[in-house]
Parts: sequence; C-alpha cells; structure tokens
Amino acid sequence: MCGIFAYLNYQVPRTRKEIFETLIKGLQRLEYRGYDSAGIAVDGTKKATTDINGNTICLIKKMGKVKALDEELYKKDSLNLEEELFTHFGLAHTRWATHGEPSALNSHPHRSDKDNEFVVIHNGIITNYKELREYLITKGYEFESETDTEVIPKLIKYIYDNRESDSITFSTLVERVIQQLEGAFALVFKSRHFPGEAVSTRRGSPLLIGVRSEHELLTDNIPIQYNSVAHFKEGIQEKNSHNRPDCSKAINSVGDACAVEYYFASDASAIIEHTNKVLYMEDDDIALVTHGKLSIHRVNRQAGENPVRAIQTLQMELQQIMKGNFDAFMQKEIFEQPESVVNTMRGRICFDTSTVVLGGIKDHLKEIKRCKRLILIGCGTSFHAAVATRQLLEELTELPVMVELASDFLDRNTPVFRDDVCFFISQSGETADTLMALRYCKKHGALTVGITNTVGSSICRETDCGVHVNAGPEIGVASTKAYTSQFVALIMFALMMSEDRLSLQARRLDIINGLRMLPELIKKVLALNDKIKAIANELYQQRSLLVMGRGFHYATCLEGALKIKEITYMHSEGILAGELKHGPLALIDKDMPVIMIIMRDGCYSKCHNALQQVIARSGRPIILCSQDDPEMTKNVYQTIELPHTVDCLQGILSVIPLQLLSFHLAVLRGFDVDFPRNLAKSVTVE
Amino acid sequence: MCGIFAYLNYQVPRTRKEIFETLIKGLQRLEYRGYDSAGIAVDGTKKATTDINGNTICLIKKMGKVKALDEELYKKDSLNLEEELFTHFGLAHTRWATHGEPSALNSHPHRSDKDNEFVVIHNGIITNYKELREYLITKGYEFESETDTEVIPKLIKYIYDNRESDSITFSTLVERVIQQLEGAFALVFKSRHFPGEAVSTRRGSPLLIGVRSEHELLTDNIPIQYNSVAHFKEGIQEKNSHNRPDCSKAINSVGDACAVEYYFASDASAIIEHTNKVLYMEDDDIALVTHGKLSIHRVNRQAGENPVRAIQTLQMELQQIMKGNFDAFMQKEIFEQPESVVNTMRGRICFDTSTVVLGGIKDHLKEIKRCKRLILIGCGTSFHAAVATRQLLEELTELPVMVELASDFLDRNTPVFRDDVCFFISQSGETADTLMALRYCKKHGALTVGITNTVGSSICRETDCGVHVNAGPEIGVASTKAYTSQFVALIMFALMMSEDRLSLQARRLDIINGLRMLPELIKKVLALNDKIKAIANELYQQRSLLVMGRGFHYATCLEGALKIKEITYMHSEGILAGELKHGPLALIDKDMPVIMIIMRDGCYSKCHNALQQVIARSGRPIILCSQDDPEMTKNVYQTIELPHTVDCLQGILSVIPLQLLSFHLAVLRGFDVDFPRNLAKSVTVE
Repeated sequence: MCGIFAYLNYQVPRTRKEIFETLIKGLQRLEYRGYDSAGIAVDGTKKATTDINGNTICLIKKMGKVKALDEELYKKDSLNLEEELFTHFGLAHTRWATHGEPSALNSHPHRSDKDNEFVVIHNGIITNYKELREYLITKGYEFESETDTEVIPKLIKYIYDNRESDSITFSTLVERVIQQLEGAFALVFKSRHFPGEAVSTRRGSPLLIGVRSEHELLTDNIPIQYNSVAHFKEGIQEKNSHNRPDCSKAINSVGDACAVEYYFASDASAIIEHTNKVLYMEDDDIALVTHGKLSIHRVNRQAGENPVRAIQTLQMELQQIMKGNFDAFMQKEIFEQPESVVNTMRGRICFDTSTVVLGGIKDHLKEIKRCKRLILIGCGTSFHAAVATRQLLEELTELPVMVELASDFLDRNTPVFRDDVCFFISQSGETADTLMALRYCKKHGALTVGITNTVGSSICRETDCGVHVNAGPEIGVASTKAYTSQFVALIMFALMMSEDRLSLQARRLDIINGLRMLPELIKKVLALNDKIKAIANELYQQRSLLVMGRGFHYATCLEGALKIKEITYMHSEGILAGELKHGPLALIDKDMPVIMIIMRDGCYSKCHNALQQVIARSGRPIILCSQDDPEMTKNVYQTIELPHTVDCLQGILSVIPLQLLSFHLAVLRGFDVDFPRNLAKSVTVE
Repeated sequence: MCGIFAYLNYQVPRTRKEIFETLIKGLQRLEYRGYDSAGIAVDGTKKATTDINGNTICLIKKMGKVKALDEELYKKDSLNLEEELFTHFGLAHTRWATHGEPSALNSHPHRSDKDNEFVVIHNGIITNYKELREYLITKGYEFESETDTEVIPKLIKYIYDNRESDSITFSTLVERVIQQLEGAFALVFKSRHFPGEAVSTRRGSPLLIGVRSEHELLTDNIPIQYNSVAHFKEGIQEKNSHNRPDCSKAINSVGDACAVEYYFASDASAIIEHTNKVLYMEDDDIALVTHGKLSIHRVNRQAGENPVRAIQTLQMELQQIMKGNFDAFMQKEIFEQPESVVNTMRGRICFDTSTVVLGGIKDHLKEIKRCKRLILIGCGTSFHAAVATRQLLEELTELPVMVELASDFLDRNTPVFRDDVCFFISQSGETADTLMALRYCKKHGALTVGITNTVGSSICRETDCGVHVNAGPEIGVASTKAYTSQFVALIMFALMMSEDRLSLQARRLDIINGLRMLPELIKKVLALNDKIKAIANELYQQRSLLVMGRGFHYATCLEGALKIKEITYMHSEGILAGELKHGPLALIDKDMPVIMIIMRDGCYSKCHNALQQVIARSGRPIILCSQDDPEMTKNVYQTIELPHTVDCLQGILSVIPLQLLSFHLAVLRGFDVDFPRNLAKSVTVE
C-alpha cells in the first residue's frame, strides 16, 4: 500500500524548486500509506551527447520517511533549483515494502535501464513478477532491485525495443504492458522518449487525476477511446502485432493547448490543496496526457460500461479526504479489511486449483514439515492471532503447537530445540520482545519464520523465512486489519502444510472456499456498523465489560477485550467461557455488561450452557451469533448476527464487531481513537 | 486430615443408642476435616466362647459421609440399641483419604486381626509404614487395607503378642508403638484385652481430651509420669525389654472412681457441647484412662519441659471452635498453610540426604523420563499451579512443558501422543473438564499423572500414577491451601526428575533447602495480616483491581486476581507485566488500583521498568516486594514486604498476601467468604 504522486505542468512556468516542493508535499499527504522509503523522478539537465534526444531523467531515492528525501533533494548540486521549466512531468512515490526490504535501491521510481529510458511508480503487488522477470532476464535485461515492480519498466522497454513502428504511442506501450501483468497496481509512467507526456493506469489499486487550469475545461465528460483492433493478447512472445491505430492525436480529451496542470495521486488528499476537479480512474483505464491534453483509453468496450469518465468537483476538506469518510485511521482500517485480506491472499492462493503457495516459505517447507513442534510467539494482538489459529494449525499439521507471549517466553528461558519451528508475529516487525525471542530461538538452533506487515523490518531480516501479510500500513495504534491479515496468513500456512494429506483435502477445500468468500462476508459484517453503534450507545458509560467465548472464539474474546482496553480505557477482559464456573461467574449480575460469542460450531452447546449460567445469574448478555441460528436470534437478548463461514475462519468475522464496538465506545467516551493514552504503535523497547 | 472422636463413659449408664448418637454427633462436628468414609468401634455382645475374656469389639464402617454411617448403625440387628452400658469406650473416625481410596475397608477404625483385639483411629500420615508393613508381613501378620494406618494395630498386637510380662499396661504398649512410628499422628486405641480402658497419643496432629463429671475434679493439673527406665529404643526386633514399671495404678491422675466421661477429639468443636473442661495433649504424650482415671505418660523428661498438663476451661462458642479463631473456613485454610505444605512434603523429602521420592510416581519415573513433552492440564486455581511451576519444570526436566486450560484443551482437540506425559491437576479430583481431558489423553496413549487432594477421586483412580497433595480437606470455595500444596507437589516432581543430573545439583539443594524453610516463611507472611487488612480497607470500595507481575509471579497475578473475583465480585485481572505496553497500560491512571509484584529475581529490572511506566501514568501501585529491597521499600508507595526465598518458591509466598487481601475485601464488602455467589466448590459438570 504505497503512495503515488505525480505532477505535470504544461505551459505553466515552475522553477525546479517549486516542482520539488509540490512533489514532496504530495508525498507527505500520502505518507500514511507507507513510509519506509521515498523517491522522485524529474527531468535532468539536457545532455548534448545522449543518443536519443538529449532528454535525461534524474532519479533521487532515499530510505526512510519523506522528510529524509526532502533533505536529499537539496544536496544535489547538479540540479539548478532556480531553473524555470515551462512544461515538466515529475513522479514521486512513498513506499510500504512488500517485496524487497526498504532501501534506496528497492524504492520507487523504478527504471528500465541505467539510462532511465522509462521510469515508473507503482502501488500494489504484481503476482506474476517472477515469471516476467525470468523471461526478461533470458532476453538480457538486468535487474537491480528485489522488487516486483521492476519488471514493469523493464517490460515497457522490452516492448518499446521490439516495437513494430516508431509511431507507437506511450499509451499503447502501457496498454501492452498491463496485458501481461497479474495482481494489483496503480502505475504512472514517464519516459525520455515521450518528454512532457504522462501515462497512468490502474487495476485494483486506487488512482485519481486532478486537473487545474485558469481556463474553463473543454468538457467535464471525457469519452473513452477504445482500441478495439486486434491486440497483444497472444503473449509477450509475439512482438509484431499489426495495424495498431495511432491515438496520439486524441480528439476526445480534456485540456487545451495552453496552461494546464495535472496531478496523479493514490487518493484525493494529495490533490485537494491544488484543485478540486478530479477524475477517478477505473480498472484498466489508461490515462494519457500529451501536449497538455488528457485522454482515456481502453482496449475493449464491455457491455453496459459507461463510455465516459466524468471530472468531478470535490467538496471535501483535506482531513476528511485523508481518512476517507472516516473519523479516524482505526475506523478506516477496520473498513479496509475486505481489501486487506485480499491483499494478504493475493498471488498466494490459487482458488481454481485450490493451491496455496507462500513464496517466502516454500523453500523451507520440507524442513518445516520435518519439525517436532511449532511455537508461535508474539505480543498483544499478534499473540492473539496465534491463539486464533492454533487449533487449525494443530488440526492440519498434527504437530504440537505452542503459543507464547514473547516476554513470558523470554522470562522463562523456555527450552527450544533444533527441531522446533518458531514463528515471530509482529505488525511492525520491530517489537522488542518478539525480536529478542527470535534471537533467543536462533541461538538455540530453531528454524525461524517471520509473520510481519513490514518488509525489511528487523524480524524480516533476521528470520530464516517468512510471510509478509501485506495489510498495508496501519496508522491506528489499536491494530485491526493487521490482526485479520496475520490470521489469514497463518491459515494459509496451515493449508500449505497439509497440501499433500489426502485425508485433509475436503477440509482444505472448505477453508479455501471460505477464504474466497471472506471479503464479501467481511463487508456484510461491516454493514452492521449502525447496530453496533447503537449498542455502544447503551454501554459507553460502563466501567467494566466482559467478553466470553471458547474454542475458535477464545482469541476473539482476548482481542476484543484488548481493543476496548486500549482505546476506551474501560476495564474489559476476555474470558474463556469454559472457565466461567471456576471463578469469573461470581462477577455476573444484572449490572455487569457481558458480550458472549456463540457460533454454530463444535462448541455451540457448551457456549449455550455458559449462556444459561449467565442468564441464571440475571446477566443480560449481548450475543454475537450466527444469523442462521433461530435459537439465539429468537430470544429476548440483544444479538449481533454474523454471516456463517467455516469454523476456523469465523473468528475473522467475529472480531470485527468488537473492533467497531471499541471504536464507537471510544468516540462516545470522548477519546482520541488513533492515539490512545500511554500507548505507542509499535513497542520497540522491552 | 481426618477427624478423630472417642467417648468413654465410666460408671455413667448410657444405652448403646445414646453412645451411637454421641459418636455420630462428634463425627458430624469434625466432618469438615474429611468426609469420604467413616467408622466406629464399640463393644460387641459378650461371647461365652471366646478365648480371652468374652469381650468383643464391633466395627461398623461405611464409605461416604457420616450420614451414611449413621444410617448403617441402625441396620445392625445384632446389637441391642436399648442395652445400658455402665462403662464403655467407643471410637469414631471420619476419613480424608491419603493412602488407599475411600472404601469401607480402608476406613477407620483399623484392627489388629480378625478378632479385633486392638483397634485404632488415626489422623495423620505414617511415613515409614511400608518398612513396618514389610517387617510385619514377614512375621506373619496379614494386611487387609491399603492404608498407612493399618501397621499401627498390627504393630501393637505384635508387641502384645511378644510381651515379656502379662502385666504390661496398655499405655506401655502404645509407648512402644510410637517409638517405631515416623510421620504425623493422633491415635486413639481400644482393646479387648483392656476393657474400659482408653489410650491416646499424638505427634504433629492435634488431639485433645474433654472431661465431664458431676463431681469436682481432684486436680486441674495432671503431673506427667516419666518412664525413665531403659525402654524399647533398640527397635522392633528386641522383644524382651525388662523392668518396666507398672503404671496401671496411676496416682497422678484425674477423675475419681465414680461417674466420669471422657471425650477424645481432633478439635474442640466435637467436645464443647459436652464439656468445657479440656486438656490439650502435647507431642508424644500418652494419655491413659483406666478405671475412670486419666493419667499422662512420657518416656523421658526433657530439660525445661512443663511437667504437668493443665485442664483448661474453654469459653468459646461452637461456631468459633469449628473455625478456630477464624471468621471463615477460607481464612482458616489460609492460616493452615504452614502445616499443609509440610503435610505435602511429609515422608517425601528427606532433608538430610536431599532426596525426594514421590511414592505414587516413582514406579513410573523411568517411563516419564523418556517422554518428549509434559502437558499440565487443569482449570481455575489448579491451572494456575501449573503456570506457577512451569518454568522450574522446564528448567529441571529440560523438556517442553505445555500448560492447558482443560476446557480449551478439549475444545481444540489438541494433538496428544504416546510419548507425552499429561498431568491432571484438581483439588477435588472430580473436576469435569479435567477428568474428560484425562480420558481424552488416555485414549491417545499418553501416560497420565494425577495431582489431587482427594484420594480415591475419579482422577486418582483413572490416572496411571499420581501425587496426593495431602493439604487436607478444603471447605472454602476459593481454593487457598490446595494451591500452595499443588505448587509444592509439582516442585517436588521437578526435583525428583532431576535427581540424577550433576549440573543441577546446586540448584536442587537450594530449592530443597528453600522447601525446608518454607513453613517458617509462610508464618512470616501470615504475620502481615493486619497490614493487608489495612490495605483492604483502602481498596474495598473500588470496582476494578489490576494485579501485575511476570516470570515466576505471573501465576500469582492470575491466581490473586481470581481469588478477588471469586469472593469480592470486584473486577480484578491478572496482567503479565511484559504485556503492559501492548495494551493494558491504557487503563492506568490515578484512579485505577494496581498491585505489582516486584521480587528480587531474574525479572527484577524488567518489573522495575513496568513500575516506572505505571508511575509515569500517575498510577499509585501497591507493591509486593522483597523485604531486603531498599530500592522498593524506601519509596513513597505502599509496600507489602515478603521474606526472600528461592526464586521458584517465591510464588508460594507472594500469593498469600493476595489470598488475605481477597478475604478482607470480601468481608469489608459484606459477602459470605466461604460461599461466594454463583460458584460451587468443585465443578463436576462441564
């Protein structure tokens, strides 16, 4: 989940310094989308000696936050900051690593070659990048980074190098590129061969274009141009496709030949301070700006497709745009979960063949399968992800699985052996206790596996192998989407471990099917937001809150209670329903608020017993239950009814109402949801 | 911890029915000391055919509570209930099994032979019973029960059978018996050979004698008679010791030749309704009643010893006596811990040779040592005992140790293998979830070990082997002494497992030494009662309470919080201090009461960090710390200063202040400590 920003000024004089400032400002607005490295691409000084047209592109990249890049820009003596550029196109990118650790080399823009003929910025994940990379290597292209992105500039150069005609347009090149790409992307291209031209496209990842002009725009509706002629479907091998129309003289376009500025960005927050006129791109749209004119291109028209793209006028405030329609990053991240779980699965699960391949682990799979024990280690929410998936790991691997709080694991000097496989789960990958536990386990010879959301983090670097959960950066201190993505990642690991077990195939297919449906079901749960808000309204003045469940939902209780603790400061506690009679039942009376999770799974009747006990003590529980459970929904107690999925995935759905509840409680109690008192996002000290 | 009661009426006409009623009433008062089986011994019908003197003794024993015995008595058609007995001595006993499961056969009184020549009731544990038993078997004595007690009547018969003179007294026989006994005991003897005579003695276990007479007693101070002549020290083999004075005509005695009644009991609760004149016996005192006269005998006079035993007048109410000086059984049980931990260790640890032998496990030790993993399974407090000792088990066995809540273990269908050793921890031995987990593990072929406080319970019977913690019956629903005894039992297991490991010897010696000192240190902690009561006074109106610690004290936090939950209904929660920054710290402000455990051990500096964080958020913690820690005790916060012991035993000392705190909080909040709402003592349903 990187941030893309690009700025084109046509016939608008800007000094290089002003351009830099615009690009940096854009990145800073997008920094919440990732902040491990950043880079820009601008026109360099014209060279008389160059073989093409004297154009050069200058790349400046820096590891760290945007601020570090900003400082770097002014160190470049070779660039005249005061030089005025009438027409210029600059790219900028802030990165959240998914492939390849944070470094200047891995950061964007990526380039086609040492001469920077094509440069590109990318947000998303290219899932077939390995195949493309191998193909391009056989064609003699040299790769310099570990990223998935780098295949894109290489590929466009390959297509350009093998073009059938010198009149091929920039947008046609990009159109051919994206026909080869699988995965999710928003892309903006710049090229020495097409000075002053910009091409952008998207699939899955967001991208919008802002337009600013002193003059009235020619039209607010841009008709799409379809390249309906035979095209590059047959694959990368076929280099001579014929009869491609020359679209460079777009008649269906916006912008006049005079002064106009274009802004390309991942979201409106980076644009709104410049203009409120924006165009939201659709999947597989290709936007071309040439001679100051914006046109939209698509390969084919699909039935029912809207043949125009409208330029809208935004009425939002900046703050509102940054968080979307949300009041807080945490809320935004809760609502991102239908997408973030897809990102976790992207390129890893093939639903057609029911196979799961975690690239970061597959080379170690044999070794992992030989182990005697799995140990899952984490703190806080990450620990809960381990608790949540433990049962399925036990079921599908048939190995003993221990879950450990990192600090307790260290305190106990827990025995660890060479035939153990230890997982280290951490959103940031920098959690101090988890990191120390990792070093301890390495010292004892165990195989170590990282489960993080941050490529290049210490845990990523120091583990033998790992899974990046790809949830995108998480800003809210209370972790939400990272939890569900960790959950999915561990489930995928269990699926991969059991691929070869005949007796487990039916179960595996069920789960894989469940994972396919998951985003839709998460959306259904999120639709309960208003109901949950109403419940929060009843509860927010309470001091205590118990969350009870068992089996697959014990982790949900712990995690839900932790969310409530963290941001509402209510004393909430997750209680294993099976332990109720061994003490906690004494707390129950008509005044103690209780949330019970009672799903249709193997623990249903036991949970039902617990419910009876609570009711017998005058408790008035709020029940999280299956929507297809008349036994629960008919009764007089308040229920939150969730769609049904496979038992081992139900915990992903059951935690979301508690995430929402904690959010609403915190708002009602008047607290800053994203910055709870006393806490920090990642705990990098012991 | 059985209950002993005996009643002698001399020249006081009582029908057999009245005698039964007196015996049953006595047992009922003592039933809190144990209730798995009961029995009585009374004079039977005189037989003309018998070889001695026509006297017979009738034993009636019944498994179950005293009520079951009571019903049984009236089923004996052979005994004439209305027959008046001028002089009679009857024994009664309610049992809490320590050796041999509850059954009529294992219950007391035990007898010397089929003709019931000698019968005895016993409270305590004879630790050298196996050696005695083996010796007596070689001499042709046949044993019928599995108890440790049975060696006593066999032994007295052996001595009687090999007596040097027919004039040997009953008390001399008993004196010779107790010289052979190791362990703890209170004993009352009855014999066909000494009709109307009673002998009682004690060592370690309590025993007192009530005296009731219409007439003034001759004296309130009974001088002790010392048998200072050569006696039976050389061992059981020497059967002819000489020149023993005949003490049967005691001149130093109480009671006249007319009507008098004597009551023997484990505590005053069984006596107070009959008389308030009582004599408390001292260790190794032998009390003899013959011809209605009570005399006290000892072998040797020790320097400084009080040469008289006073008859005291009790001013207490019955209720007060039953609970001693305590307001509740729970409180009494907390204060019993210096003794109950000794009972757990009795006969198992030899402090001189630093060896630990758990009789119930030693035959399986080889098999246990070959295992791949230890799994400790329990619910509630028993689970906490597992958490508390896990680290030492890991350290001394160097095996992976998993601790599991029984219900969650079952919910997860946790993989269990033939090379696992599974421990099932339960005070009652009947906890439903733990019992089902036991059956599950047996089905999977694991070796099963029981850790219970109830011999003959389901868990005892169904496990392959086990340890009886010998804490004595626990009446208070909130478990206290059972926890510390489970703790000690598991520590002893770890010690036994590591006996052969050279590198662990220094550590073992430290721990064994710590165990030896433990009772004294527990007394010192109990002496803090007033201070803890004062703290309770400050806290009792709070709604929430957090208990924080880590390492060896994490279990203390969980257990302390559970105690508070159970009986005060305050929402208390045990929190791993290492997890503080991952969420719970948000709860801390000046209003949230926090107890922190910060002991001088490997986690000291980490705990200190946690303290700083709490203080930085305006928290005002109450600190449980070492008394030799000026860093803690000098600061402005309230401290509870505990004596120092070995790190792995410190948890026994640190839990006691929280037991006391929960008690005082519950009293201040006005709740019934022994019968908390919604809870039952043992949870025998899922």
